[in-house]
Amino acid sequence: MSNVKLDYENVKQYIKDEELNKYEIKTKLAMSELKQRNDFTGFIDLPNKIDKKEFENIKTYAKEIKEKAQVLVVIGIGGSYLGAKAGIDFLSSYFPNKNNIEVIFAGFNLSGTYLKELVAYLEKKDFYINIISKSGGTLEPAVSFRILKELLEKKYGEKEANKRIIATTDKQKGILKEMSKEKGYRTLVVPDDIGGRYSVLTAVGLLPLATSGANIDELIQGANDERKKIWSEKFEENSCAKYAAIRQILYLKGKEIEVMSSFEPNLRFFGEWWKQLFGESECKNGRGLFPASLNLSSDLHSLGQLMQEGRRNIFETFLVLKKGNKDIKINKDKENKDKLNYLENKSVNYLNQVVHSATKKAHSSGLVPNLTLTIEKENSYNLGILFYFFEMACALSATHLGVNPFDQPGVEEYKKNIKEMLRR
Amino acid sequence: MSNVKLDYENVKQYIKDEELNKYEIKTKLAMSELKQRNDFTGFIDLPNKIDKKEFENIKTYAKEIKEKAQVLVVIGIGGSYLGAKAGIDFLSSYFPNKNNIEVIFAGFNLSGTYLKELVAYLEKKDFYINIISKSGGTLEPAVSFRILKELLEKKYGEKEANKRIIATTDKQKGILKEMSKEKGYRTLVVPDDIGGRYSVLTAVGLLPLATSGANIDELIQGANDERKKIWSEKFEENSCAKYAAIRQILYLKGKEIEVMSSFEPNLRFFGEWWKQLFGESECKNGRGLFPASLNLSSDLHSLGQLMQEGRRNIFETFLVLKKGNKDIKINKDKENKDKLNYLENKSVNYLNQVVHSATKKAHSSGLVPNLTLTIEKENSYNLGILFYFFEMACALSATHLGVNPFDQPGVEEYKKNIKEMLRR
Repeated sequence: MSNVKLDYENVKQYIKDEELNKYEIKTKLAMSELKQRNDFTGFIDLPNKIDKKEFENIKTYAKEIKEKAQVLVVIGIGGSYLGAKAGIDFLSSYFPNKNNIEVIFAGFNLSGTYLKELVAYLEKKDFYINIISKSGGTLEPAVSFRILKELLEKKYGEKEANKRIIATTDKQKGILKEMSKEKGYRTLVVPDDIGGRYSVLTAVGLLPLATSGANIDELIQGANDERKKIWSEKFEENSCAKYAAIRQILYLKGKEIEVMSSFEPNLRFFGEWWKQLFGESECKNGRGLFPASLNLSSDLHSLGQLMQEGRRNIFETFLVLKKGNKDIKINKDKENKDKLNYLENKSVNYLNQVVHSATKKAHSSGLVPNLTLTIEKENSYNLGILFYFFEMACALSATHLGVNPFDQPGVEEYKKNIKEMLRR
Repeated sequence: MSNVKLDYENVKQYIKDEELNKYEIKTKLAMSELKQRNDFTGFIDLPNKIDKKEFENIKTYAKEIKEKAQVLVVIGIGGSYLGAKAGIDFLSSYFPNKNNIEVIFAGFNLSGTYLKELVAYLEKKDFYINIISKSGGTLEPAVSFRILKELLEKKYGEKEANKRIIATTDKQKGILKEMSKEKGYRTLVVPDDIGGRYSVLTAVGLLPLATSGANIDELIQGANDERKKIWSEKFEENSCAKYAAIRQILYLKGKEIEVMSSFEPNLRFFGEWWKQLFGESECKNGRGLFPASLNLSSDLHSLGQLMQEGRRNIFETFLVLKKGNKDIKINKDKENKDKLNYLENKSVNYLNQVVHSATKKAHSSGLVPNLTLTIEKENSYNLGILFYFFEMACALSATHLGVNPFDQPGVEEYKKNIKEMLRR
């Protein structure tokens, strides 16, 4: 059984056994197709083929940054941003902790206000830059990098500034690689056979994660353990293969929107990463599930109305923690004016689980097919499991759908347009 | 012309003039229906009927909190959370500023980790609590309030703690009102004729906003100016009425998802507020547009693929700023290794506008009808305009759709379920 538990009891009334069973052979075919492709499938065996020298470099750089800086500015967009942001949010504490280095993202927007304020903030801080771009030519990160590099050089002088820039980029070519050679920036590699949205377990995600305090040995271990299970388990026990199959079956039955719902605020950006992964991989040729995410129980008091009684073109995937990292109990109050003493000694995480049960029940009775994916709790090992699980589920699901899981012609179109408009 | 500019050039190929013109009379009918209702339409005239004494109290409390505390904890969920959060994000600077009081939200989740870490964080801080709950009985805020009140009493003693709690609740009844009387908490009012998701311009939103530094005189002035325009302008010039009409026409043509796209990171939670407002008001009886939001240009590098080439069941509403509060220019670099010198002296906000133009063009050619709502820049006055504009657009739109804009039977169902499950 996978480390991600799948409960799909609440989709059984919508899917016949034989419909799901057909996906046993479809999964075998899809897996074999993925193994035979020679384009962007490097992510499949990545956790088992980590380049040891690169991995040690990442740890060394992370250690150096933690010793010498208060802030690491990570410049990237899309797949060079969301994975690290999701992972750091998942693993970090909710409130500022003076022992930790601050990781700030940039290059994911073109807000003059954001950049101006970031420059003012960094003037008073010791900082490093990790610029992440395969080509170096993408507009948003390139603009942020020019502006922040100028500040770094002004602050430390060019020689020291060059030591404080680490570029995660193509192994040999591109603007950023050329700059790095000439300036002497240290570099890490965005591999040729791994697309941006599948790259969180490469240096793209690993340097920001390691710097923020994640244990990247455990992260890769989790991903690798999950890889072994997904590639060896029978369909019956294979949560990943079944999740991919169920979402396709529901899609073909007219469920056009998949809502990922989670009950921990620190999963908000995991939802953003998941939306990019699935949206960019599947939504092409006029097809594909629209991915949306909810943060519960907050959104039960808002979009809960839609889930309960809106159009029935939705299914829901709950992503839940079996237990939280920390917990707090409700104490007896001698006055009991708020009438909560019936919850005495109950823990808040227990209440959260009850809310999950109540929500499953309510949405089921509201005719929303729903499934639940459960992971133990927030740590680096489980984060590695989750990243690998969803990357594989996405590649399988898109393959079932008959689209290329690894291209993004629509995004390339936009990137081309914007450059043309600016050069005019 | 409204203070919110509407450009709907890119929906004209999907909507005939006579289709839109039919909504002139429909809008009159809907406005008259709204004026005649006597349930939750208090928000309509609210900006013109501010209770002066309550308003002065809000300012006095905000001033006191800023003088005596480092942190204001705002406890609320749904409509008692999203409006203030959206407004504070929109108006505040992106990076911590020691001159400002920190506003932390709680009660919008049941994460044991979140609450445990919040308690640890607050132990070292001077803080006040603003508990916002019409009844006082909603589980999530009630649990958070019990735990944080216990901490406050332990830290300051009960007498001083009671001075540091401000309750925003029903005028006369309910658990929280009763507690406030007995304990001597100061109270502010959640009016009877204004529902949670329409309440941001009452004390619900105003106290957190004023404490965070918003100018609430200007905020109300903006809302009131917008009110006058919406209720007096002809349909032809009425951005709000036209926006409400266009979204209904597109919905009836099979556009099932409205995506709100913005180009400033500080509009992320404005999108969350907007999703609740529209989702909860319209999605009932098996009807209603599914509201989703994108944060650009980041999401162009992820969900941009879906917008460009996914299922054509989408339309898009851009919410953009005419100019940002701050800006920064791209300087010449003598080496020009990043090849960006062609952008010399261009400002980042200018690039952002070009990205908006390029995106409109790309999504139009990708057959996504799209409209643009433009506001000047981030300030309290414009925030008031935006809040009122969308509240009225929502009430009109739901009325056109033939659903009650002000109830939420699906959410009530969930609230009832959860209490029953816990009492067992």
